[in-house]
Amino acid sequence: MTSPLLEQLVEAFRVLPGVGQKSAQRMAYHVLERERAGGRRLADALAAAVEKIGHCARCRDFSEDEVCATCASAARDVHQLCVVETPADRLAIEQATGYRGLYYVLQGRLSPLDGIGPGELGLDRLGARLGEGEVSEMIIATNPTVEGEATAHYLGQLARQHGVRPSRLAHGVPLGGELEYVDRGTLSHAFGTRSEMT
Amino acid sequence: MTSPLLEQLVEAFRVLPGVGQKSAQRMAYHVLERERAGGRRLADALAAAVEKIGHCARCRDFSEDEVCATCASAARDVHQLCVVETPADRLAIEQATGYRGLYYVLQGRLSPLDGIGPGELGLDRLGARLGEGEVSEMIIATNPTVEGEATAHYLGQLARQHGVRPSRLAHGVPLGGELEYVDRGTLSHAFGTRSEMT
Repeated sequence: MTSPLLEQLVEAFRVLPGVGQKSAQRMAYHVLERERAGGRRLADALAAAVEKIGHCARCRDFSEDEVCATCASAARDVHQLCVVETPADRLAIEQATGYRGLYYVLQGRLSPLDGIGPGELGLDRLGARLGEGEVSEMIIATNPTVEGEATAHYLGQLARQHGVRPSRLAHGVPLGGELEYVDRGTLSHAFGTRSEMT
Repeated sequence: MTSPLLEQLVEAFRVLPGVGQKSAQRMAYHVLERERAGGRRLADALAAAVEKIGHCARCRDFSEDEVCATCASAARDVHQLCVVETPADRLAIEQATGYRGLYYVLQGRLSPLDGIGPGELGLDRLGARLGEGEVSEMIIATNPTVEGEATAHYLGQLARQHGVRPSRLAHGVPLGGELEYVDRGTLSHAFGTRSEMT
């Protein structure tokens, strides 16, 4: 390339997930040829986000405020608390469901081998919150992976210790899916937990 | 989302080519969760690139200097000039071939319907350069599209006006390709321009 700055830009784009050398080049050329104003906006938005976005003191989701808008909202039901692994999981639930309760974002899952224990996930703070007595149901929405299940198990015990009712998302055949292509574990689970037609 | 800054960041990522809402979210979360330092570097690189990268006064490729390193290099053959449509085309040729001559980047192709004529492509400056008498061969490497071919035709005439020999990249069956999957136009062209085996 003719420009050292351009080379640095291509290299910098590669921190983004799924962006290799070729995509990074395409992005750099696209911005320089057609989107200088957009590139400027992206640079500013990135700098501001990296600088100012921290974690909400209540739910640990990303927020530039001490307490995020959801936690501060008077319109949400404080009796329900949905626990998720990541901000992306929280967003998916918020967009897909009509849930009006609050969230708690672990920012990870229990993984002793990686040195991630209850402390790293803020479970002490979650316990203290359950102890406040406002929450009556804790909806555990960790991922259905081995580590997610272990985390769910731990969370369930934590809830019961504080007299809070724990619940789990339903597992089964996805809507619109074809039985032929559903994995065995899911199919076996769905078969075992079948319900009577009404 | 819980954070207005995060929403702005997601929106800003969408200026990148091939990045929709979902990828933009993934990029934003990735940067905030795992790559804050990389995000900072990307913001700086983008700001610097958008601000400082202009066009080389000789070849019109991207450069933050008045004249780019290639044009300023004493090691390049000034008698050959390869004309390409975009900086990406130039990079592809530079990386794939052993070409040691100079380049001229049109930053587009003739397209009267879009208001892109010889002036927008800097063809007056290209003509003046050919008039300097240094260039003996002009390698026309525009894309084999309708507009690229029209541009090539125009460039060929321009070269001859200045006593410069114009040449075109060879068209034909790509190496490693299968005849069955080569498009008809290419196959017909390759058949018509077959050469004797030696």
